[in-house]
This record gives sequence, structure tokens and C-alpha cells, in this order.
Amino acid sequence: MSIRIGIFGYGNLGRGVECAVRQNSDMELAAVFTRRNPADVSILTEGVPVYHASDATNHTNEIDVMILCGGSATDLPNQTPELVSLYNVVDSFDTHAKIPEHFANVDAAAKKSGKIGIISVGWDPGMFSLNRMYANAILPQGSDYTFWGRGVSQGHSDAIRRIAGVLDAKQYTIPVEAALKAVRAGENPELSTRQKHIRECFVVAEEGADLSRIENEIKTMPNYFADYDTTVHFISMEELKREHSGIPHGGFVIRSGQTGWNHEHSHLIEYSLKLDSNPEFTASVIAAFARAAYRMAQKGESGCKTVFDVAPAMLSAESGEALRARLL
Amino acid sequence: MSIRIGIFGYGNLGRGVECAVRQNSDMELAAVFTRRNPADVSILTEGVPVYHASDATNHTNEIDVMILCGGSATDLPNQTPELVSLYNVVDSFDTHAKIPEHFANVDAAAKKSGKIGIISVGWDPGMFSLNRMYANAILPQGSDYTFWGRGVSQGHSDAIRRIAGVLDAKQYTIPVEAALKAVRAGENPELSTRQKHIRECFVVAEEGADLSRIENEIKTMPNYFADYDTTVHFISMEELKREHSGIPHGGFVIRSGQTGWNHEHSHLIEYSLKLDSNPEFTASVIAAFARAAYRMAQKGESGCKTVFDVAPAMLSAESGEALRARLL
Repeated sequence: MSIRIGIFGYGNLGRGVECAVRQNSDMELAAVFTRRNPADVSILTEGVPVYHASDATNHTNEIDVMILCGGSATDLPNQTPELVSLYNVVDSFDTHAKIPEHFANVDAAAKKSGKIGIISVGWDPGMFSLNRMYANAILPQGSDYTFWGRGVSQGHSDAIRRIAGVLDAKQYTIPVEAALKAVRAGENPELSTRQKHIRECFVVAEEGADLSRIENEIKTMPNYFADYDTTVHFISMEELKREHSGIPHGGFVIRSGQTGWNHEHSHLIEYSLKLDSNPEFTASVIAAFARAAYRMAQKGESGCKTVFDVAPAMLSAESGEALRARLL
Repeated sequence: MSIRIGIFGYGNLGRGVECAVRQNSDMELAAVFTRRNPADVSILTEGVPVYHASDATNHTNEIDVMILCGGSATDLPNQTPELVSLYNVVDSFDTHAKIPEHFANVDAAAKKSGKIGIISVGWDPGMFSLNRMYANAILPQGSDYTFWGRGVSQGHSDAIRRIAGVLDAKQYTIPVEAALKAVRAGENPELSTRQKHIRECFVVAEEGADLSRIENEIKTMPNYFADYDTTVHFISMEELKREHSGIPHGGFVIRSGQTGWNHEHSHLIEYSLKLDSNPEFTASVIAAFARAAYRMAQKGESGCKTVFDVAPAMLSAESGEALRARLL
């Protein structure tokens, strides 16, 4: 019997989950829920119903795990506790500072309903967190570094689009090569914000707009750009669509640590991702954790979990025997 | 209360465990067991007793987890099942092909004694296995690559030392840069043994030995060198001791996979290690899994486990709250 997956919210992430479910032969897509008019939403999988989000209460017998594909700012803080009252759920809540609060809310609701809610699944938080955690447990003495990119930052692209005279924009976050090199050389550098990442912006301006004003507004924007070395390229709408329509991302998690009686030996643990599609990769991680949510629920567990709480074997469609023989 | 660690076998790995225990404030070294005369074994930690291996039956109340530091060829196949009858144990059994058999033996003994035995802990098997497994679960469609090095292969160094006229030798396994580059470029190459690694040998020969015969014997040695591009450098004993006394190692685990409705997007997951001391790093991984063994035993679990069965949070001295706040 397949694990029946529901998708709650059908944007880039929801479509990514739909693709991921198709790649996992022990899963099937059972339904998609949307806040739009379901008749207006056309999905990729044939024969799967699209329901309105408000109908979620009526389909609890058809879905084993509901994957929540809303945003962290306003959707998930409410949706995850609400839906874990009805379903086992997985979300990708990524506001790092608010994870403890979100965990507490989801945990209370999940313990009440007897369901499993795995939160903050994806790559950061998610696989990057796991690698930070494993590396810290292995090397108690050391320094942690996380670099993001080269990749598109949606929030920073949106910030540029709000500037008067800007028609469209894409912003790439790029790790500073010299900083990566120093970390990999075991130099344990203390790195400022500016020393870790640069920001590259591709901007389509209105005809006749004051380009130097726009460039200045971008480069001096507090929080978003002021603390970084930022470059701005003005390009045509055609070039933006042709060259910058993808959603690539990635990054590096590095721990540089020491062992030995007098800490005389150095070690470097590095985990990196290079992703053509940020939402599809995030969705692929989520699909694996949906399998784990299903299995934990089958075992009678309940409550809020994170990637730290899930034994790795629970993520795989393969048996313990097969994993030991093939991948150990 | 600290987790009381026993070390069974005091070679490079045993000393590495001793150093790792010192770095983990929730652990203490309780005893070292050796097959040598205990009076002849001097350890680094003051005030800790050294017992003969045959005394292991008499100290079950003093040790929470026994870490087995013997070899995979002849020690661990017997020692791990025997000692898991008395203690929670962790070993670093690394004969990949015999893991299923070893697992079965340890599992039977551990279930009988009610203890936990975590086998095949270290970096390969160990952290590399975990990364293969996570990456396979996330990207069901893709190719796996493992490269080892640059690092010292003990087995290959030993093989050179057995050649007539050789006084000492060190062999380095080195990944082929072009192969790594092709994999990272997402080319999914099929790589032969020769295309993946080269072998570099530093050899001290007896005075007057026939160097070209030695070089030829090395380069044509079946299994060890014949399938590789091998270079041989003859050096003095002084240079060997000065430049090649370390035990560095490392490597790369890469999964190159595809997502999307038509597999149109490519992704690269890469995990790499660069280690000054192979045994000390292995020991550091083992120490973290010893903590997990202790906790699993406290929860009443028993049987044989691998790195795939251990929820990541079990490895860390930090609480779930602290991990979520700091590393998620």
C-alpha cells in the first residue's frame, strides 16, 4: 500500500512535492488543497482531485501525510498547528529565530491529536542543520561556517522590485571565494557579513528611470544590501527572462575542528549543495521526511519532530537489510 | 553523572578514543583493556586503570559503553558478539562485504544480553554511509560516487613492506581530479577503478636493492596496484619519518541526481572530509555514537544498530531545545 500524500498549497514548492512524489514508488498523490478556486488550478498528475483549503477537514481518511507548502511568514504559524490536529504533517518553516515557538505550538496540537508533525524540513533548515549537528557532535572543539549560494534570494529580489522605477529583478547571493578558501585551509577566520557573501543584482528598469538613483537605493538598503558588497546590472526584460528565470541555489556547511591530546590535529567536514531548482530539492527532502512521518505515526508516536529526531533509515524506501548491504 | 567509557584495545584508535572522551564533558574514561601485559601499557589519562583483556568479565558495573578498538579482519568478528554479551558496545567494523553477517551475529548476542551494539561506526563505513543514505533518500534518481583520499592506506602500505628489499613504505590514495570535476559538473560519468584514484608510494629500500624490480613488483601487484596508475618514489628513512609519519585521510561522497516532472533539473550533494588524523577522527565519530548507545540502552532498547538507526539528536550532548535554537 502506498503512502497517500496531500499537498496543501500549490505554488513552486507544491509542484516540487508533486514531482517528488512521482519519483518515490511507495508514495501516491491523494489530493491537492488550494486557497484559490480549485477549478482554476490545474495540476500535473492526472486523476488527482483539487480541493479548496477549507475542505481539509473532510478528507482525513484519504491522506496519510499532508505536506504544507505555505510560507513561513504568515501561513505556517497558523496552518501547521491547525492541520496537525487532523493529519500527520511536514512543513518547511524556515524562520530560524521563531522555530522554538513554532515547535511548541505544533507539539501541543500534535500531542492532543496523536499525530506527527515534522517541522522545518528542507535544506536550511533541514539538511544543513543536520550537517551542523552531526559535525558538532563529532568535533566538540571547532568552528562552524555556513555559506549560501550561488543562488537566487527571493526576499532580496522582492526588495529590489519595490523600488520606484524597477519593473523586475533577480538577486543572487554568492559566497566570497577567499573566505571559503580560508575556512577550508583551517584558518578558522572570524568573518564579517561583508566578508562572507556578495550580492549580485540583475534589474529591469522602466524606460527613462534614473538608474544611478536605483543603484544607490539598492546598495544602501539597510539589512538587505548595505552590509554587503553589491553589484547592480541593468538588463532588458528579455535578458532577464532568458538568463535569469531559474531558481538555483545551494551552499556550504563547514566545520573546522581539532582533535588530539593537545588539539594538535585539524579536521575539515564539508557539506555542500548545488541545486538547479531550490523548490524541487526542498520538496525532495520533504518527501523523504513524509515517509518518516508516516512510519513514526504507524509506530504510535506523536508530537512535533525535527530532522534531528528522525533516525536516517526511516527516510528510505529500502529495508534495513538492503541499506546495510548497499550503502553502509 | 558521566557516561563511563571503556576502551578495548589500545592502539592508534584506542588512543584516539581516549582523546575524544577528554573532549566530551559528559564522558569519562573508566578503564582500558589490552591483550598486552597491562603493566607495560602506559596511557595518557591519569588515574585510569589498565586491565588485561581477559578481565573484561569482571568490570561490567564500572563501564556504560565499551568501545572496541580491534581490527576488522580477526578481532571484531569475535570480540563484538562476545563483549556485547556483557556491555553496550560500539565498534568500527569496516569490512563492507561482511557487514550483514557481522550484524546478524552481534544482533543475536545483543538481544540475548539486552545490550546495544552499534557496529561499523567511523567515517567509511559511518559518516560516508550516512551521507550516501540521506542523499539516496532525497534524490531517488541519481548516481553515487565515493572518492577516498588524499590519505594513507594502511593495507597498501603493508603490502609494499612485504616486498623483498623494502624497509618501510607509505602509500597515499589520491582521487583523480578530472574524475571529481566531471562528477561535480553533473556529467554522471561511468568511472573505472583507474579513472577514480591514483596511488603514490614512498618507499625506503635496503642498500643495494634492485629498485626497478621493487617498483615493478609494486606496480603489477594484483588487487592492490595493478588496476591503478601508480607512482613510486624511493626516499631515505629520514625523509619517510620526517615527511610521512602522519596518518591523514579523507574523501568525498557525491550524489548527482535529477528532479522535476521530466527530470529536467540536476542537483549535486557533496560531503567531504579532510582529516589530519584518520584514527582520531574515527574515534571522535565513535565517541558520539557511544553517547547514543548509552541513551538507547537507558531507554530499554537492545540489539545491533548501525548509524542508519540512530536519531541524530542522540549523538549530541546538547538538549533538544538547545539544538533547535542553535543549529536547526
